[in-house]
Amino acid sequence: MNAADKLKNIRVVLSRPSHPGNIGAAARAMKTMGLSALYLVNPRRFPDHEAETMASGARDVLAGARVCASLDEALAGTVLAVASSARPRELPVEVVTPREAARRLLEAARAHPAALVFGSETSGLSAAEVGKCRLLAYIPAGPEYSSLNLAAAVQVFAYELRMALPEKHQARRAGGAPAAHEEVEGFLAHLEQTLAAIGFLDPRQPKKLMRRLRRLFGRAQLEKEEINILRGILTAVNARRR
Amino acid sequence: MNAADKLKNIRVVLSRPSHPGNIGAAARAMKTMGLSALYLVNPRRFPDHEAETMASGARDVLAGARVCASLDEALAGTVLAVASSARPRELPVEVVTPREAARRLLEAARAHPAALVFGSETSGLSAAEVGKCRLLAYIPAGPEYSSLNLAAAVQVFAYELRMALPEKHQARRAGGAPAAHEEVEGFLAHLEQTLAAIGFLDPRQPKKLMRRLRRLFGRAQLEKEEINILRGILTAVNARRR
Repeated sequence: MNAADKLKNIRVVLSRPSHPGNIGAAARAMKTMGLSALYLVNPRRFPDHEAETMASGARDVLAGARVCASLDEALAGTVLAVASSARPRELPVEVVTPREAARRLLEAARAHPAALVFGSETSGLSAAEVGKCRLLAYIPAGPEYSSLNLAAAVQVFAYELRMALPEKHQARRAGGAPAAHEEVEGFLAHLEQTLAAIGFLDPRQPKKLMRRLRRLFGRAQLEKEEINILRGILTAVNARRR
Repeated sequence: MNAADKLKNIRVVLSRPSHPGNIGAAARAMKTMGLSALYLVNPRRFPDHEAETMASGARDVLAGARVCASLDEALAGTVLAVASSARPRELPVEVVTPREAARRLLEAARAHPAALVFGSETSGLSAAEVGKCRLLAYIPAGPEYSSLNLAAAVQVFAYELRMALPEKHQARRAGGAPAAHEEVEGFLAHLEQTLAAIGFLDPRQPKKLMRRLRRLFGRAQLEKEEINILRGILTAVNARRR
Protein backbone atom coordinates (compact mmCIF):
# COMPACT_ATOMS: atom_id res chain seq x y z
CA MET A 1 0.00 0.00 0.00
CA ASN A 2 1.44 3.36 -0.91
CA ALA A 3 1.39 6.49 1.21
CA ALA A 4 -1.62 8.03 -0.49
CA ASP A 5 -3.70 4.92 0.12
CA LYS A 6 -2.87 4.97 3.82
CA LEU A 7 -4.13 8.53 4.10
CA LYS A 8 -7.37 7.50 2.39
CA ASN A 9 -7.83 4.94 5.17
CA ILE A 10 -7.86 7.66 7.81
CA ARG A 11 -11.29 9.14 8.51
CA VAL A 12 -11.73 12.63 9.86
CA VAL A 13 -14.84 12.50 12.05
CA LEU A 14 -16.50 15.76 13.07
CA SER A 15 -19.01 15.20 15.85
CA ARG A 16 -21.90 17.66 16.03
CA PRO A 17 -20.22 20.52 14.14
CA SER A 18 -22.21 23.75 14.58
CA HIS A 19 -20.88 25.93 11.77
CA PRO A 20 -20.99 24.78 8.16
CA GLY A 21 -18.08 27.10 7.38
CA ASN A 22 -15.90 25.03 9.67
CA ILE A 23 -16.93 21.83 7.88
CA GLY A 24 -15.84 23.37 4.58
CA ALA A 25 -12.57 24.70 6.03
CA ALA A 26 -11.87 21.28 7.54
CA ALA A 27 -12.42 19.66 4.15
CA ARG A 28 -9.91 22.07 2.63
CA ALA A 29 -7.39 21.35 5.41
CA MET A 30 -7.81 17.62 4.74
CA LYS A 31 -7.42 17.80 0.98
CA THR A 32 -4.29 19.94 1.08
CA MET A 33 -2.64 17.15 3.07
CA GLY A 34 -4.04 14.29 0.98
CA LEU A 35 -6.89 13.16 3.25
CA SER A 36 -10.33 12.54 1.78
CA ALA A 37 -12.60 10.53 4.11
CA LEU A 38 -14.85 13.00 5.94
CA TYR A 39 -17.52 11.71 8.37
CA LEU A 40 -20.05 14.05 9.94
CA VAL A 41 -21.98 12.97 13.04
CA ASN A 42 -25.23 14.93 13.34
CA PRO A 43 -24.03 18.18 11.77
CA ARG A 44 -26.32 21.10 12.54
CA ARG A 45 -26.40 22.23 8.90
CA PHE A 46 -25.18 20.13 6.00
CA PRO A 47 -24.97 20.42 3.08
CA ASP A 48 -24.69 24.19 3.16
CA HIS A 49 -23.55 26.98 0.90
CA GLU A 50 -21.09 28.32 3.48
CA ALA A 51 -19.39 24.93 3.69
CA GLU A 52 -18.95 24.94 -0.09
CA THR A 53 -17.44 28.43 -0.03
CA MET A 54 -14.94 27.61 2.70
CA ALA A 55 -13.99 24.29 1.11
CA SER A 56 -12.64 26.20 -1.90
CA GLY A 57 -10.86 23.55 -4.02
CA ALA A 58 -11.97 20.69 -1.74
CA ARG A 59 -15.65 20.49 -2.66
CA ASP A 60 -15.17 16.89 -3.72
CA VAL A 61 -14.30 16.02 -0.12
CA LEU A 62 -17.57 17.63 0.98
CA ALA A 63 -19.50 15.85 -1.75
CA GLY A 64 -18.10 12.53 -0.55
CA ALA A 65 -18.76 13.23 3.14
CA ARG A 66 -20.76 10.60 4.97
CA VAL A 67 -23.39 11.83 7.43
CA CYS A 68 -23.85 9.52 10.43
CA ALA A 69 -26.43 9.34 13.19
CA SER A 70 -23.94 8.33 15.88
CA LEU A 71 -20.24 8.24 16.62
CA ASP A 72 -20.44 4.44 16.70
CA GLU A 73 -21.67 4.50 13.12
CA ALA A 74 -18.78 6.74 12.06
CA LEU A 75 -16.26 4.49 13.81
CA ALA A 76 -17.66 1.19 12.52
CA GLY A 77 -14.87 -0.84 10.94
CA THR A 78 -12.02 1.25 12.35
CA VAL A 79 -9.25 -0.37 14.36
CA LEU A 80 -7.92 2.80 15.96
CA ALA A 81 -9.78 5.96 16.94
CA VAL A 82 -7.96 9.04 18.24
CA ALA A 83 -9.91 11.75 20.07
CA SER A 84 -8.71 15.31 19.61
CA SER A 85 -9.07 17.52 22.64
CA ALA A 86 -8.23 21.14 23.35
CA ARG A 87 -6.73 20.16 26.67
CA PRO A 88 -5.36 17.21 28.57
CA ARG A 89 -8.31 15.84 30.48
CA GLU A 90 -8.85 13.76 33.53
CA LEU A 91 -10.10 10.86 31.52
CA PRO A 92 -8.90 7.30 31.62
CA VAL A 93 -7.25 7.22 28.22
CA GLU A 94 -3.69 7.41 26.95
CA VAL A 95 -2.63 10.94 25.99
CA VAL A 96 -0.31 11.63 23.06
CA THR A 97 0.89 14.55 20.95
CA PRO A 98 -0.52 15.05 17.45
CA ARG A 99 2.87 13.85 16.16
CA GLU A 100 2.64 10.54 17.99
CA ALA A 101 -1.04 10.23 17.06
CA ALA A 102 -0.12 10.63 13.39
CA ARG A 103 2.51 7.93 13.65
CA ARG A 104 0.08 5.49 15.21
CA LEU A 105 -2.75 6.33 12.83
CA LEU A 106 -0.54 5.71 9.82
CA GLU A 107 0.63 2.42 11.25
CA ALA A 108 -2.96 1.28 11.81
CA ALA A 109 -4.07 2.56 8.42
CA ARG A 110 -1.71 0.31 6.54
CA ALA A 111 -4.33 -2.41 6.62
CA HIS A 112 -7.51 -1.05 8.17
CA PRO A 113 -9.55 2.14 8.54
CA ALA A 114 -8.60 4.43 11.42
CA ALA A 115 -10.22 7.64 12.65
CA LEU A 116 -9.39 11.02 14.06
CA VAL A 117 -12.34 12.45 15.99
CA PHE A 118 -13.12 16.11 16.68
CA GLY A 119 -15.87 17.47 18.92
CA SER A 120 -18.20 20.40 18.46
CA GLU A 121 -16.83 23.95 18.36
CA THR A 122 -18.48 24.93 21.61
CA SER A 123 -18.10 21.94 23.89
CA GLY A 124 -15.57 19.62 22.28
CA LEU A 125 -15.97 15.89 22.72
CA SER A 126 -18.01 14.50 25.59
CA ALA A 127 -16.44 12.06 28.05
CA ALA A 128 -18.55 9.31 26.52
CA GLU A 129 -17.24 10.15 23.04
CA VAL A 130 -13.63 10.18 24.23
CA GLY A 131 -14.34 6.84 25.92
CA LYS A 132 -15.00 5.29 22.52
CA CYS A 133 -11.51 6.28 21.36
CA ARG A 134 -8.29 4.54 22.23
CA LEU A 135 -6.05 7.62 22.35
CA LEU A 136 -6.52 11.25 23.28
CA ALA A 137 -4.34 13.69 21.36
CA TYR A 138 -4.08 17.30 22.24
CA ILE A 139 -2.33 20.13 20.54
CA PRO A 140 0.00 21.86 23.00
CA ALA A 141 -1.27 25.40 23.40
CA GLY A 142 -0.32 28.64 25.07
CA PRO A 143 -1.41 29.21 28.64
CA GLU A 144 -3.62 32.22 27.91
CA TYR A 145 -5.88 30.82 25.21
CA SER A 146 -6.01 27.23 24.10
CA SER A 147 -9.10 27.14 21.89
CA LEU A 148 -8.09 26.41 18.31
CA ASN A 149 -10.62 26.86 15.57
CA LEU A 150 -11.99 23.44 14.56
CA ALA A 151 -10.58 23.54 11.03
CA ALA A 152 -7.23 24.81 12.36
CA ALA A 153 -7.03 21.76 14.61
CA VAL A 154 -7.85 19.51 11.66
CA GLN A 155 -5.07 21.27 9.73
CA VAL A 156 -2.50 20.58 12.44
CA PHE A 157 -3.32 16.87 12.59
CA ALA A 158 -3.52 16.55 8.81
CA TYR A 159 -0.13 18.27 8.54
CA GLU A 160 1.38 15.85 11.05
CA LEU A 161 -0.03 12.92 9.07
CA ARG A 162 1.57 14.27 5.92
CA MET A 163 4.87 14.92 7.72
CA ALA A 164 4.85 11.33 8.99
CA LEU A 165 5.01 10.06 5.40
CA PRO A 166 6.81 8.20 3.98
CA GLU A 167 6.62 5.59 6.55
CA LYS A 168 9.81 4.77 8.34
CA HIS A 169 10.44 1.12 8.80
CA GLN A 170 8.86 0.51 12.14
CA ALA A 171 9.02 -2.67 14.11
CA ARG A 172 5.75 -4.26 13.29
CA ARG A 173 3.64 -5.57 16.10
CA ALA A 174 3.50 -9.35 15.79
CA GLY A 175 -0.05 -10.51 16.12
CA GLY A 176 -3.36 -11.30 14.57
CA ALA A 177 -5.99 -9.15 12.95
CA PRO A 178 -7.01 -6.18 15.11
CA ALA A 179 -10.59 -6.08 16.36
CA ALA A 180 -12.96 -3.55 14.82
CA HIS A 181 -14.61 -0.83 16.88
CA GLU A 182 -17.98 -2.61 17.03
CA GLU A 183 -16.35 -5.87 18.13
CA VAL A 184 -14.65 -4.12 21.05
CA GLU A 185 -17.93 -2.39 21.96
CA GLY A 186 -19.76 -5.71 21.79
CA PHE A 187 -17.23 -7.28 24.15
CA LEU A 188 -17.46 -4.38 26.60
CA ALA A 189 -21.27 -4.61 26.65
CA HIS A 190 -21.02 -8.37 27.27
CA LEU A 191 -18.51 -7.71 30.06
CA GLU A 192 -20.72 -5.09 31.72
CA GLN A 193 -23.75 -7.40 31.59
CA THR A 194 -21.72 -10.23 33.12
CA LEU A 195 -20.29 -8.06 35.89
CA ALA A 196 -23.81 -6.91 36.74
CA ALA A 197 -25.00 -10.53 36.82
CA ILE A 198 -22.29 -11.60 39.28
CA GLY A 199 -22.97 -8.56 41.46
CA PHE A 200 -19.63 -6.90 40.81
CA LEU A 201 -20.87 -3.54 39.50
CA ASP A 202 -21.47 -0.89 42.16
CA PRO A 203 -25.16 -0.06 41.57
CA ARG A 204 -24.50 3.51 42.71
CA GLN A 205 -21.67 4.01 40.19
CA PRO A 206 -22.05 1.36 37.52
CA LYS A 207 -20.22 3.42 34.91
CA LYS A 208 -17.08 4.12 36.90
CA LEU A 209 -15.75 0.60 36.78
CA MET A 210 -16.57 0.28 33.08
CA ARG A 211 -14.61 3.42 32.30
CA ARG A 212 -11.57 1.89 33.95
CA LEU A 213 -11.95 -1.43 32.15
CA ARG A 214 -12.54 0.37 28.86
CA ARG A 215 -9.25 2.15 29.29
CA LEU A 216 -7.41 -1.06 30.18
CA PHE A 217 -8.70 -2.96 27.16
CA GLY A 218 -8.22 0.09 24.97
CA ARG A 219 -4.52 0.06 25.77
CA ALA A 220 -4.32 -3.62 24.96
CA GLN A 221 -5.46 -3.04 21.35
CA LEU A 222 -7.48 -6.25 21.26
CA GLU A 223 -7.32 -8.64 18.35
CA LYS A 224 -10.33 -10.38 16.83
CA GLU A 225 -9.36 -13.77 18.21
CA GLU A 226 -8.79 -12.33 21.68
CA ILE A 227 -12.29 -10.89 21.64
CA ASN A 228 -13.57 -14.40 20.88
CA ILE A 229 -11.61 -15.83 23.81
CA LEU A 230 -12.75 -13.14 26.23
CA ARG A 231 -16.39 -13.48 25.19
CA GLY A 232 -16.04 -17.24 25.54
CA ILE A 233 -14.92 -16.74 29.12
CA LEU A 234 -17.89 -14.45 29.80
CA THR A 235 -20.27 -17.00 28.32
CA ALA A 236 -18.75 -19.72 30.54
CA VAL A 237 -19.14 -17.49 33.61
CA ASN A 238 -22.78 -16.86 32.76
CA ALA A 239 -23.47 -20.54 32.03
CA ARG A 240 -22.09 -21.61 35.40
CA ARG A 241 -24.41 -19.25 37.20
CA ARG A 242 -27.50 -21.06 35.99
CA MET B 1 14.80 34.52 28.51
CA ASN B 2 11.99 32.05 28.95
CA ALA B 3 10.07 30.31 26.21
CA ALA B 4 7.15 32.69 26.28
CA ASP B 5 9.45 35.66 25.76
CA LYS B 6 11.07 34.00 22.77
CA LEU B 7 7.67 33.57 21.13
CA LYS B 8 6.89 37.23 21.74
CA ASN B 9 10.04 38.04 19.74
CA ILE B 10 8.66 36.28 16.67
CA ARG B 11 6.56 38.46 14.40
CA VAL B 12 3.90 37.09 12.13
CA VAL B 13 3.84 39.34 9.07
CA LEU B 14 0.85 39.17 6.70
CA SER B 15 1.61 40.93 3.44
CA ARG B 16 -1.40 42.38 1.60
CA PRO B 17 -4.08 40.16 3.16
CA SER B 18 -7.37 40.43 1.22
CA HIS B 19 -9.89 39.01 3.67
CA PRO B 20 -10.27 40.48 7.14
CA GLY B 21 -11.69 37.14 8.33
CA ASN B 22 -8.31 35.58 7.60
CA ILE B 23 -6.53 38.24 9.64
CA GLY B 24 -8.75 37.45 12.60
CA ALA B 25 -8.34 33.69 12.19
CA ALA B 26 -4.56 34.15 11.93
CA ALA B 27 -4.61 36.14 15.20
CA ARG B 28 -6.48 33.29 16.87
CA ALA B 29 -4.01 30.72 15.48
CA MET B 30 -1.16 32.83 16.88
CA LYS B 31 -2.57 33.32 20.33
CA THR B 32 -3.42 29.65 20.86
CA MET B 33 0.27 28.89 20.39
CA GLY B 34 1.53 31.83 22.47
CA LEU B 35 2.47 34.24 19.68
CA SER B 36 1.36 37.85 19.90
CA ALA B 37 3.26 40.12 17.49
CA LEU B 38 1.10 40.61 14.41
CA TYR B 39 2.29 42.89 11.58
CA LEU B 40 0.05 43.75 8.66
CA VAL B 41 1.54 45.14 5.43
CA ASN B 42 -1.09 47.08 3.48
CA PRO B 43 -4.14 45.06 4.50
CA ARG B 44 -7.11 45.64 2.21
CA ARG B 45 -9.48 46.14 5.16
CA PHE B 46 -8.36 46.64 8.72
CA PRO B 47 -9.66 47.03 11.36
CA ASP B 48 -12.83 45.19 10.45
CA HIS B 49 -15.77 43.55 12.18
CA GLU B 50 -15.17 40.21 10.43
CA ALA B 51 -11.61 40.11 11.71
CA GLU B 52 -12.87 40.64 15.27
CA THR B 53 -15.40 37.83 14.90
CA MET B 54 -12.88 35.35 13.56
CA ALA B 55 -10.29 36.30 16.19
CA SER B 56 -12.66 35.04 18.91
CA GLY B 57 -10.57 35.10 22.11
CA ALA B 58 -7.58 36.73 20.38
CA ARG B 59 -8.91 40.24 19.89
CA ASP B 60 -6.03 41.58 21.95
CA VAL B 61 -3.65 40.34 19.24
CA LEU B 62 -5.67 42.26 16.65
CA ALA B 63 -5.76 45.33 18.85
CA GLY B 64 -1.98 45.22 19.16
CA ALA B 65 -1.40 44.61 15.42
CA ARG B 66 0.95 47.02 13.73
CA VAL B 67 -0.05 48.21 10.27
CA CYS B 68 2.95 48.87 7.99
CA ALA B 69 3.31 50.53 4.62
CA SER B 70 5.98 48.13 3.37
CA LEU B 71 7.51 44.74 4.10
CA ASP B 72 10.77 46.52 4.93
CA GLU B 73 9.00 48.42 7.67
CA ALA B 74 7.56 45.19 9.12
CA LEU B 75 10.97 43.50 9.06
CA ALA B 76 12.88 46.41 10.60
CA GLY B 77 14.94 45.21 13.55
CA THR B 78 14.60 41.50 12.77
CA VAL B 79 17.66 39.27 12.44
CA LEU B 80 15.95 36.42 10.62
CA ALA B 81 12.97 36.48 8.25
CA VAL B 82 11.38 33.28 6.96
CA ALA B 83 9.10 33.43 3.92
CA SER B 84 6.20 30.99 3.85
CA SER B 85 5.28 29.64 0.47
CA ALA B 86 2.67 27.20 -0.78
CA ARG B 87 5.28 25.55 -2.96
CA PRO B 88 9.03 25.18 -3.36
CA ARG B 89 10.09 27.90 -5.78
CA GLU B 90 12.90 28.59 -8.16
CA LEU B 91 14.33 31.33 -6.04
CA PRO B 92 17.87 31.74 -4.74
CA VAL B 93 17.03 31.11 -1.12
CA GLU B 94 17.47 28.18 1.23
CA VAL B 95 14.34 26.03 1.48
CA VAL B 96 13.34 24.38 4.78
CA THR B 97 10.38 22.59 6.35
CA PRO B 98 8.17 24.42 8.86
CA ARG B 99 9.78 22.27 11.55
CA GLU B 100 13.28 23.43 10.68
CA ALA B 101 12.06 27.01 10.23
CA ALA B 102 10.61 26.92 13.75
CA ARG B 103 13.90 25.70 15.19
CA ARG B 104 15.85 28.49 13.51
CA LEU B 105 13.33 31.18 14.39
CA LEU B 106 13.43 30.23 18.07
CA GLU B 107 17.19 30.22 18.03
CA ALA B 108 17.29 33.71 16.54
CA ALA B 109 14.54 34.96 18.84
CA ARG B 110 16.54 34.29 21.95
CA ALA B 111 18.15 37.69 21.56
CA HIS B 112 16.47 39.53 18.69
CA PRO B 113 13.20 39.87 16.85
CA ALA B 114 12.60 37.41 14.01
CA ALA B 115 9.76 37.19 11.49
CA LEU B 116 7.62 34.69 9.65
CA VAL B 117 6.17 36.22 6.48
CA PHE B 118 2.99 35.20 4.64
CA GLY B 119 1.78 36.50 1.29
CA SER B 120 -1.69 37.40 0.11
CA GLU B 121 -4.38 34.73 -0.22
CA THR B 122 -4.52 34.95 -3.97
CA SER B 123 -0.94 35.35 -5.13
CA GLY B 124 1.29 34.50 -2.17
CA LEU B 125 4.57 36.33 -1.76
CA SER B 126 6.20 38.03 -4.71
CA ALA B 127 9.74 37.13 -5.71
CA ALA B 128 10.85 40.52 -4.40
CA GLU B 129 9.25 39.81 -1.03
CA VAL B 130 10.82 36.36 -0.78
CA GLY B 131 14.12 38.01 -1.68
CA LYS B 132 13.95 40.03 1.52
CA CYS B 133 13.84 36.82 3.58
CA ARG B 134 16.71 34.51 4.43
CA LEU B 135 14.79 31.25 4.35
CA LEU B 136 11.81 29.90 2.41
CA ALA B 137 9.65 27.42 4.28
CA TYR B 138 6.90 25.46 2.66
CA ILE B 139 4.31 23.14 4.11
CA PRO B 140 4.42 19.77 2.36
CA ALA B 141 1.07 19.29 0.65
CA GLY B 142 -0.84 16.66 -1.27
CA PRO B 143 -0.39 16.47 -5.04
CA GLU B 144 -4.00 17.31 -5.93
CA TYR B 145 -4.47 20.54 -4.02
CA SER B 146 -1.78 22.45 -2.21
CA SER B 147 -3.46 25.73 -1.35
CA LEU B 148 -3.82 26.07 2.40
CA ASN B 149 -6.03 28.75 3.82
CA LEU B 150 -3.85 31.64 5.07
CA ALA B 151 -4.83 31.22 8.72
CA ALA B 152 -4.39 27.44 8.45
CA ALA B 153 -0.81 28.01 7.26
CA VAL B 154 -0.21 30.39 10.17
CA GLN B 155 -1.59 27.71 12.49
CA VAL B 156 0.84 25.07 11.18
CA PHE B 157 3.89 27.32 11.68
CA ALA B 158 2.67 28.54 15.07
CA TYR B 159 2.14 24.94 16.12
CA GLU B 160 5.67 24.02 15.05
CA LEU B 161 7.04 26.96 17.03
CA ARG B 162 5.22 25.76 20.12
CA MET B 163 6.36 22.16 19.56
CA ALA B 164 9.95 23.39 19.24
CA LEU B 165 9.95 24.92 22.70
CA PRO B 166 12.19 23.02 25.07
CA GLU B 167 9.55 22.97 27.75
CA LYS B 168 6.89 21.82 25.37
CA HIS B 169 4.01 19.89 26.75
CA GLN B 170 4.96 16.26 26.84
CA ALA B 171 2.17 13.84 26.25
CA ARG B 172 1.93 11.76 29.34
CA ARG B 173 -0.01 8.71 30.04
CA ALA B 174 -2.68 9.61 32.55
CA GLY B 175 -2.73 6.74 34.95
CA GLY B 176 -1.74 5.16 38.17
CA ALA B 177 1.26 3.24 39.41
CA PRO B 178 2.29 0.31 37.22
CA ALA B 179 1.87 -3.15 38.68
CA ALA B 180 5.00 -5.03 39.73
CA HIS B 181 6.01 -8.28 38.09
CA GLU B 182 4.84 -10.42 41.02
CA GLU B 183 1.46 -8.68 41.06
CA VAL B 184 0.90 -9.49 37.41
CA GLU B 185 1.97 -13.09 38.00
CA GLY B 186 -0.37 -13.34 40.99
CA PHE B 187 -3.25 -12.13 38.85
CA LEU B 188 -2.45 -14.57 36.03
CA ALA B 189 -2.33 -17.48 38.48
CA HIS B 190 -5.68 -16.38 39.92
CA LEU B 191 -7.09 -16.14 36.40
CA GLU B 192 -5.85 -19.59 35.42
CA GLN B 193 -7.33 -21.14 38.57
CA THR B 194 -10.66 -19.43 37.92
CA LEU B 195 -10.79 -20.49 34.27
CA ALA B 196 -10.10 -24.06 35.33
CA ALA B 197 -12.87 -23.85 37.92
CA ILE B 198 -15.46 -22.68 35.38
CA GLY B 199 -14.35 -25.35 32.93
CA PHE B 200 -12.93 -22.97 30.36
CA LEU B 201 -9.39 -24.35 30.15
CA ASP B 202 -8.84 -27.10 27.64
CA PRO B 203 -7.51 -29.90 29.86
CA ARG B 204 -5.42 -31.22 26.97
CA GLN B 205 -3.75 -27.87 26.37
CA PRO B 206 -4.16 -25.83 29.54
CA LYS B 207 -1.16 -23.64 28.85
CA LYS B 208 -2.09 -22.54 25.34
CA LEU B 209 -4.91 -20.24 26.41
CA MET B 210 -2.85 -18.82 29.24
CA ARG B 211 -0.06 -17.92 26.82
CA ARG B 212 -2.54 -15.91 24.78
CA LEU B 213 -4.01 -14.16 27.79
CA ARG B 214 -0.55 -13.46 29.15
CA ARG B 215 0.33 -11.75 25.89
CA LEU B 216 -2.90 -9.71 25.92
CA PHE B 217 -2.45 -8.45 29.49
CA GLY B 218 1.25 -7.95 28.91
CA ARG B 219 0.46 -5.47 26.15
CA ALA B 220 -1.95 -3.63 28.44
CA GLN B 221 0.82 -2.85 30.97
CA LEU B 222 -1.48 -3.29 33.93
CA GLU B 223 -1.57 -0.84 36.81
CA LYS B 224 -1.74 -1.81 40.49
CA GLU B 225 -5.32 -0.67 40.85
CA GLU B 226 -6.38 -2.52 37.71
CA ILE B 227 -4.91 -5.73 39.15
CA ASN B 228 -7.09 -5.18 42.22
CA ILE B 229 -10.18 -4.71 40.06
CA LEU B 230 -9.46 -7.79 37.93
CA ARG B 231 -8.78 -9.96 40.98
CA GLY B 232 -11.97 -8.64 42.56
CA ILE B 233 -13.89 -9.83 39.50
CA LEU B 234 -12.25 -13.27 39.73
CA THR B 235 -13.12 -13.50 43.42
CA ALA B 236 -16.75 -12.60 42.60
CA VAL B 237 -16.87 -15.27 39.88
CA ASN B 238 -15.53 -17.87 42.31
CA ALA B 239 -17.90 -16.82 45.10
CA ARG B 240 -20.93 -17.23 42.84
CA ARG B 241 -19.93 -20.75 42.03
CA ARG B 242 -20.25 -21.88 45.62
